[in-house]
Amino acid sequence: MSHENTPENGKDPLVIFTPSGRRGHFPVGTPVLTAARQLGVDLDSVCGGRGVCSKCQITPSYGEFPKHGVTVAEDALSDWNKVEQRYDDIRGLTKGRRLGCQAKVQGNIVIDVPPESQVHKQVVRKRAEVRDITLNPTLHLSYVEVEEPDMHKPSGDLERLIAALKLATGHDALEIDTHLLRPLQPLLRKGEWKVTAAIHTAHSGGTPRIVALWPGYFEGPIFGLAVDLGSTTIAGHLCNLSTGEVVASSGLMNPQIRFGEDLMSRVSYAMMNAGGDLEMTEAVRAGLNDLVDDIAKDAEIDKSQILDAVFVMNPVMHHLFLGIDPFELGQAPFALATSDALELAASDLGLDIAPGTRAYILPCIAGHVGADAAGVALSEAPNKSDDLALIVDVGTNAEILLGDKNGVLACSSPTGPAFEGAQISSGQRAAPGAIERVEIDPITKEPRFRVIGSELWSDDEGFDATIATTGITGICGSGIIEVIAEMRMAGLVDASGLIGSSEQTGTDRCFADGRTNSYRLWDGNEDQKAITVTNGDIRAIQMAKAALYSGARLLMDKRGVEDVDRVVLAGAFGAHISSKHAMVLGMIPDAPLDKVTSAGNAAGTGARIALLNRDARGEIEALVRQIEKIETAVEPRFQEHFVNASAMPNSSDPFPTLRSVVDLPDPSFNTGGGEDGTEGGRRRRRRRG
Amino acid sequence: MSHENTPENGKDPLVIFTPSGRRGHFPVGTPVLTAARQLGVDLDSVCGGRGVCSKCQITPSYGEFPKHGVTVAEDALSDWNKVEQRYDDIRGLTKGRRLGCQAKVQGNIVIDVPPESQVHKQVVRKRAEVRDITLNPTLHLSYVEVEEPDMHKPSGDLERLIAALKLATGHDALEIDTHLLRPLQPLLRKGEWKVTAAIHTAHSGGTPRIVALWPGYFEGPIFGLAVDLGSTTIAGHLCNLSTGEVVASSGLMNPQIRFGEDLMSRVSYAMMNAGGDLEMTEAVRAGLNDLVDDIAKDAEIDKSQILDAVFVMNPVMHHLFLGIDPFELGQAPFALATSDALELAASDLGLDIAPGTRAYILPCIAGHVGADAAGVALSEAPNKSDDLALIVDVGTNAEILLGDKNGVLACSSPTGPAFEGAQISSGQRAAPGAIERVEIDPITKEPRFRVIGSELWSDDEGFDATIATTGITGICGSGIIEVIAEMRMAGLVDASGLIGSSEQTGTDRCFADGRTNSYRLWDGNEDQKAITVTNGDIRAIQMAKAALYSGARLLMDKRGVEDVDRVVLAGAFGAHISSKHAMVLGMIPDAPLDKVTSAGNAAGTGARIALLNRDARGEIEALVRQIEKIETAVEPRFQEHFVNASAMPNSSDPFPTLRSVVDLPDPSFNTGGGEDGTEGGRRRRRRRG
Repeated sequence: MSHENTPENGKDPLVIFTPSGRRGHFPVGTPVLTAARQLGVDLDSVCGGRGVCSKCQITPSYGEFPKHGVTVAEDALSDWNKVEQRYDDIRGLTKGRRLGCQAKVQGNIVIDVPPESQVHKQVVRKRAEVRDITLNPTLHLSYVEVEEPDMHKPSGDLERLIAALKLATGHDALEIDTHLLRPLQPLLRKGEWKVTAAIHTAHSGGTPRIVALWPGYFEGPIFGLAVDLGSTTIAGHLCNLSTGEVVASSGLMNPQIRFGEDLMSRVSYAMMNAGGDLEMTEAVRAGLNDLVDDIAKDAEIDKSQILDAVFVMNPVMHHLFLGIDPFELGQAPFALATSDALELAASDLGLDIAPGTRAYILPCIAGHVGADAAGVALSEAPNKSDDLALIVDVGTNAEILLGDKNGVLACSSPTGPAFEGAQISSGQRAAPGAIERVEIDPITKEPRFRVIGSELWSDDEGFDATIATTGITGICGSGIIEVIAEMRMAGLVDASGLIGSSEQTGTDRCFADGRTNSYRLWDGNEDQKAITVTNGDIRAIQMAKAALYSGARLLMDKRGVEDVDRVVLAGAFGAHISSKHAMVLGMIPDAPLDKVTSAGNAAGTGARIALLNRDARGEIEALVRQIEKIETAVEPRFQEHFVNASAMPNSSDPFPTLRSVVDLPDPSFNTGGGEDGTEGGRRRRRRRG
Repeated sequence: MSHENTPENGKDPLVIFTPSGRRGHFPVGTPVLTAARQLGVDLDSVCGGRGVCSKCQITPSYGEFPKHGVTVAEDALSDWNKVEQRYDDIRGLTKGRRLGCQAKVQGNIVIDVPPESQVHKQVVRKRAEVRDITLNPTLHLSYVEVEEPDMHKPSGDLERLIAALKLATGHDALEIDTHLLRPLQPLLRKGEWKVTAAIHTAHSGGTPRIVALWPGYFEGPIFGLAVDLGSTTIAGHLCNLSTGEVVASSGLMNPQIRFGEDLMSRVSYAMMNAGGDLEMTEAVRAGLNDLVDDIAKDAEIDKSQILDAVFVMNPVMHHLFLGIDPFELGQAPFALATSDALELAASDLGLDIAPGTRAYILPCIAGHVGADAAGVALSEAPNKSDDLALIVDVGTNAEILLGDKNGVLACSSPTGPAFEGAQISSGQRAAPGAIERVEIDPITKEPRFRVIGSELWSDDEGFDATIATTGITGICGSGIIEVIAEMRMAGLVDASGLIGSSEQTGTDRCFADGRTNSYRLWDGNEDQKAITVTNGDIRAIQMAKAALYSGARLLMDKRGVEDVDRVVLAGAFGAHISSKHAMVLGMIPDAPLDKVTSAGNAAGTGARIALLNRDARGEIEALVRQIEKIETAVEPRFQEHFVNASAMPNSSDPFPTLRSVVDLPDPSFNTGGGEDGTEGGRRRRRRRG
């Protein structure tokens, strides 16, 4: 019994736990584990104190503790016992450690719970600006000994198992997954009535559920899968649910690509082909099972050890994965079939992992802002930010979040695939041979660049040798941003996006190319043709970045601000993009460059957080309900922002912070006609529309 | 607002509902449905008062009501309105009826709720001694209008559906079955945002669940299936869940019969053949789907309208149906894999009915006393009986319940298949041509009998013609009971079960047949051989009836009684058996003959009750937990009772009530040797065992 609130009586020893600082008086003979449980100290135990699991290891400290006001005698704990000796013989107990279930309190004692013995371990994240993840998965293992059947007290084996588990876990009620009814009896007998159960407790309530059973004591580990189901790439992380560690990662192309490169072409495929949506559902589920195979092989585990799975994805992938026709997402009002988080039988999703696994899908924020954006929100936690953060996840659609502790807004903006190298004359996916970095000398207008697969710049000695196998094949998304921004800074492109002629720019790298000019970035060689940037390429990027910026600007309007404190670039693209160049183009709002950071695959990280911490599921569900959703398509100011944002960086917003560190010349190459005039005309019509 | 507890103020009209007698004051203009809901009056409504479903029909009464102390004026309700007019035009409203949601209170009024408008209708049962069933299924229909999607307030169609249903039903939370995610969007649009949902609310708690959806207003009916899954026969009743009516019944042979006639031979089959249990699982599930096909065809409904299913069965069938190897049930301690009631996805049981259906399986009482016995207990409700009832369900195993309001005991007893005509030389299943009734003249020792398929006795004129097609093929279970009991009463068999010789009995119908005598019941003809009763037949019945009686006697011992007040014979066999003849054999304890009644297929009725009334599920679960289970195999007194019960009626219990109405001669045909001596010897050895 806990004496926590009784006055010190000079009789029962005082037990102090660190690092929690929790303390209480306990009768002599109380096991340390019992004391910890009664004080609510975070000390792990799978076997409930039977000396089987060794999860409850603790480190006693002896001597004077003026800070705690106690002196700990050498005999403050009972002697090392047989169970501990056996464990030490077989597995080796770290010096100074004891098993909390075996060591009994005999006097005042200070006990440290090392991180590995805590249930709610901290999983450290590398980036300074984000919080660590507290390990608290939906699954827990519990080892119990089940009463044997007795003719005089007839009850099912299951009912006696549940009774034992209720006692061990404190759950009031427990269900069992139907698939376990068959193996239950042989399994209990194989384990001689000792059994380890994996119990799934949904964060949203409901009866805890036995989802897996092992005969005898099963040490684990068990694993969970966090998946970012992208339109192009499916990326999965396999996590050890006892440590939070990522033990294997794998990625593959989304097999739906054969039905259409981008989302809208897949929606069209479903509209044009009866049963087309189901073909795509089948394809993505098959892809996921390939990923599961890969990742299990990588980690050298059996797929049946994967007992949890969390998914993030955009709304179209969400529907296709669930087996829902995405038809409604292709047209206003972009109605989602379901927007809330879902917890479904993994088998209903065709996933070949442990039967009984419940798959969790993060909520969608809106018809164009999916569970992937919710994953970003969970990872980046704008709702916990003191300063106002703009978070953009750049892909075919850009999902944009703006917020701080006072509230979060979200929208998506149809950037199109230009940022991924599509619609660009020399564009290509990020792959060896692609130009990814560019510098242009503002005086000579001569470029140098780096290519994926080489550490050298193109004007470094030995560069040619490093690219001998890949060649130089095109420009990837980040390369396109850089080259256009560099052209803008070198005065080769004006603010309206027109490339100057050779005469206007003073370099013959600019050359007439039809009715506009192009810039030759690389001259080519006998094997490969030259790589140029055409005015059409610049138009494509202008459209994309204007869409992105306008979305951000709309959220800023709604929030009533002209600036943001910081910008976070999420997504694989965001990880490679140069913040300076992005800002020169006016992709993102004006901000100090050191306040523009990359979050990597934040959506995938969000999935991982939801996998490792059940409370995070409730948090993101609550946050998504609170987020104010803006539908850009119907916002009257969107068009105005779009037109302003077509200029580089912007025809209305001044970008003073950027201009204080970057020189932006201001030529005008408009000769009053040609393609630009037409474009301008179109844009003016739009404005009136 | 309800004014139920406010004093009569002379302003708000008084509304009195019959038959409930509930009353309250309501402001002028209150719809009758609203008043009923606020008073907790049982008035149905699927559409929530939109004038769509017409379930809330009521009958207003006018004039003087001295009993209620009110006078009802002609204008006490608002005038017949357009909605009512339209309904009357299309469907016809019974004269004097109004729609409760349309008619508004204008003055004091007396309103009768006719039975069809009550949610909790009474489903009348024919037998006087049992209670009617109150209709209260797990499924309810709710018609709602769903908010259309709005870009400015993005939420999924599902979330808006759930919001509408929560409002209409008052449920705090609602889930949806996964299979509905796909059809949801087209269905909502087809119904123009009007939809009817079938909501399943488990009696055991948990979140109510949308299991089916129809576009627009779906009037029903929806159906449920109550199944008694016997070792030999599968019997199903299809019930209309709105009326409680049985709309179709069907039965078929359990296809598992090809793996073994009786349960233990099926357990053996599973033990001897790897995967044998799964073969049997597949067979019984296929049989169930055949039953579903038959019954749906019979009722002219679509299988997808079957939205609930309840099952009762013995433990071996229970396990085989669930896909559990019955191995453990074949040996002590007869451990059930699971004994509690189960609610499972019907699809997990391979049932081809409406997807999303939850199948309910009644709890098993013990390793030999299954969910079928629980069904009998639910139907016959010994726990609610004022007098002490003995309920026996006779089959290959007899399940026996003894109890009253003070408590219920249960056991099973291995009667073997003799009562079903097996192990009997001329035995056969109950089918046309089988002798089912027998009388033997105590003077002449001449028999007469009736045959299934003919209304005439064998000595009636024209008998031969009526049996011309079937012939006389054997003796069924009830016939065996009768002929042996008649032989006993006619002095042809002594109390120990020996048939007398021709000399001893004075009739040449008794004839030497090996080492014992037989009795010729029918002489045969050119086509069919004679039908005789051998001493072996009598031994088989003696063993069976001794097992049955000993089980009952054990329960009486436990209860500390020498007599029971009444005996209920359940099961198909129980329906055909003559209570007098059963008692002459000593199958059942001594009791007044009019206190021995037949309950028919009480197990199946129990399934039907659990189907129609969700609370009954909780009741039987509670009762099964309270029932005291006796394992006959390990009860020391079982052998003693068995030996005593081998005599007809009994060598220890005097059967005074029986003897007061039936003459039981007391010859002894034991000549000290032969087969009987051997048998006696064996029995004496048993007694010592």
